[in-house]
Amino acid sequence: MLAHWPVAGRSLLGRIGLTFLEKCWSAHTIGRTVKSFSLSEYLARVTRQVDAALDRYLPSEETPPATIHKSMRYSVFAGGKRLRPALCLAACEAVGGRVRDAIPLACAVECIHTYSLIHDDLPCMDDDDFRRGKPTNHKVFGEAIAVLAGDALLTLAFELAARDARYVRELAVAAGSRGLIAGQVQDLQNENRAVTLEEVKATHLNKTAALITASVRLGALAGNATAAQLRRLTRYGRDIGLAFQVVDDILDVTSTKEVMGKSVGADAKHHKSTYPKLLGVEGSRQYAQSLITDAHKQLEPFGARATPLRAIADFILNRTH
Amino acid sequence: MLAHWPVAGRSLLGRIGLTFLEKCWSAHTIGRTVKSFSLSEYLARVTRQVDAALDRYLPSEETPPATIHKSMRYSVFAGGKRLRPALCLAACEAVGGRVRDAIPLACAVECIHTYSLIHDDLPCMDDDDFRRGKPTNHKVFGEAIAVLAGDALLTLAFELAARDARYVRELAVAAGSRGLIAGQVQDLQNENRAVTLEEVKATHLNKTAALITASVRLGALAGNATAAQLRRLTRYGRDIGLAFQVVDDILDVTSTKEVMGKSVGADAKHHKSTYPKLLGVEGSRQYAQSLITDAHKQLEPFGARATPLRAIADFILNRTH
Repeated sequence: MLAHWPVAGRSLLGRIGLTFLEKCWSAHTIGRTVKSFSLSEYLARVTRQVDAALDRYLPSEETPPATIHKSMRYSVFAGGKRLRPALCLAACEAVGGRVRDAIPLACAVECIHTYSLIHDDLPCMDDDDFRRGKPTNHKVFGEAIAVLAGDALLTLAFELAARDARYVRELAVAAGSRGLIAGQVQDLQNENRAVTLEEVKATHLNKTAALITASVRLGALAGNATAAQLRRLTRYGRDIGLAFQVVDDILDVTSTKEVMGKSVGADAKHHKSTYPKLLGVEGSRQYAQSLITDAHKQLEPFGARATPLRAIADFILNRTH
Repeated sequence: MLAHWPVAGRSLLGRIGLTFLEKCWSAHTIGRTVKSFSLSEYLARVTRQVDAALDRYLPSEETPPATIHKSMRYSVFAGGKRLRPALCLAACEAVGGRVRDAIPLACAVECIHTYSLIHDDLPCMDDDDFRRGKPTNHKVFGEAIAVLAGDALLTLAFELAARDARYVRELAVAAGSRGLIAGQVQDLQNENRAVTLEEVKATHLNKTAALITASVRLGALAGNATAAQLRRLTRYGRDIGLAFQVVDDILDVTSTKEVMGKSVGADAKHHKSTYPKLLGVEGSRQYAQSLITDAHKQLEPFGARATPLRAIADFILNRTH
C-alpha cells in the first residue's frame, strides 16, 4: 500500500496541489530502515547541502575583484528552488550511489541554471527587472558585470564538473548551441510570429528539458548507473523537463507576480506561442499530466530508492510558483 | 651558430620588425632531419590545421538554430592570428609530444579567446564597432545573439577540452573569475581613475597572460610534459602574455585603425591607465624586451624543439598589428 504512494499521491495532488504535498508522507526505504518521506524536508535538506557546497566553491565576496564575486553570489543565493540539484542527487540515490559524489555536479548544474537566468534577464534578451522577487542581476550590478557574472558561473560549472571528462561533455552538450542556448535562440525567434506545437516543443526541449535531463543523468553517472538505468532516467528527465515548461507557461497565464516572484504575462507581452495558447489551459494541464504519468512509468524498476524522483515529478506538475 | 638564431634574430628583429621576420629562416631540428624555419609558414600551417579542425568542431551554418551557428562562425573565422593555438601546438612540440593530440585544445583556447572578444565588444562593455577590420558580432547579429554566441563558444571550448578532466580544470581556472574574467572586470574598473603600475600589471596578468599561459600549458600537458618542463613553460607563457599586452598598449598609442583593423586610441578615450602612460613608450618597449629575454631563458633546455616558441616570443615583441 505504502509502495503505491506516488501513484495515489499524484492523483490526489493533482486536485489539491503543493500545500497539501508538503504535508504528505510516504514510505522511504533506505537500506534496512524504513522512514517517512516528506518532499519539503527533502528539498530543504538538498538546499542546505548544496548551498553549503556552493558557498565553498564560489570565491568569497572579498576575493578580488569583489564586484564579480558579489554579483555571482547575489544570483546564486537569490532563493532558487534548487530543483536541478535535487534531481541530480535524487538520481544518484535512485541508482544506489553515494549522494556526496554527486554534490559537485549538483552545484555545476545550478551554476549553469543561474548563468542562463542572468543572461536571459538582460535588456537585450527578455529585459526582466525582477527574478525570484528580487531585482535582476543587471539592475543591481549593471549590464557589464551581469554579462561577466554569467560567464563566470558558466566557467565555474565546468571547473566543478571536471571530476571526470564524461561529466564535462554531458554538461557542455546540454548547455551548448544545440541544447540550452538553442532553446534561448528559438525562444527569441518565436516572438511575434505564429509557431506550431512542434516548434514550441522543440524550443522547450532545448530551453528547459536539456539541462533538467543532464541534471538527472549526471547524478546517475556519479552513482555508476547501468546503461539501462541511464536510458530510463534520461526519458524521465525529458518528461519532467517538458512538463516543467508546460506548467511554467500555464502559470504565466494563471498566476500573479506576488506568487511567482517575477513578472507574469511576459509570454503574452512578447507574443510568444505557448502551450496554453495552442492547447488551452485545460489541454495543457492534461498534456503535463500525461508526461508525468510516463515519468512515473520510467521509475518503476527503481523501487523505493526513486521515491524522491517520484515526488519531484509530482511537485513539477502541481507547483503553484 | 644556428642554435643561437633566436638570440641573434631577436635583437635584429627588434630593429626591423615583422615584415623582415617573415623572411627570416633558421635551423629547425625535428628528430634527425634539419630543415629551415619560417614563422610565417609555421603560423600559416597552424592556421590551416586549426581552421580545418574548428570547421569540423563548430556546427555548420545550416544546423538549427542557424543564426547562432552563423554568428559563432562569423567571429571564429574573422581572420584571427591563431596565436594561442600556435602556442598550444608549439608547446606540445617543444616537449616532444604529438601535435595532433593538442589540436582540440588549440581549438578550445581559440574558442575562449573569441568568446571573450565578442563579449568585450558589447555596447555595455567596450562598445566597439570593429574588430579585425570587420563589424563586431553584435553589429551584425544583434546584442542578444552576440551574448549567446559568446556563451556557446565558451561552452564548446569545454566540450573540446573534455578529453581529460585536467585540461578542463586548467582552462576553467584561466578563463574564470580569478583569471580572464577578473582581468575584464579590473579593466572596466580602471577606467577614469589613476591606477598604479602594479594594478595595471595585475589586470594584464589576468586579462591576457592567464589564457596565453593556459594555451602553452595545455599543449605541454597534451605532450606529456615533465613537471620541470611545465614550470619553465608556465613562466614563458606569463612572460610573453604580459609582453603581448604591453605591446598592445603601445600599438594603441602608435598605430592606426587601418593597420590594426580595429579602433585605436580606445585606451585614451576610456582614460585607461596603460604602460605607455605610466612608463612612456620607450620605457614600455624596454619592459617588453626584458620579458621576452626572460622567456628565451626559460626555453634554453628545450633545444631546437622550441624554435617555434622562440620565434613566437620575438613575433609578440615586434608585431606591428
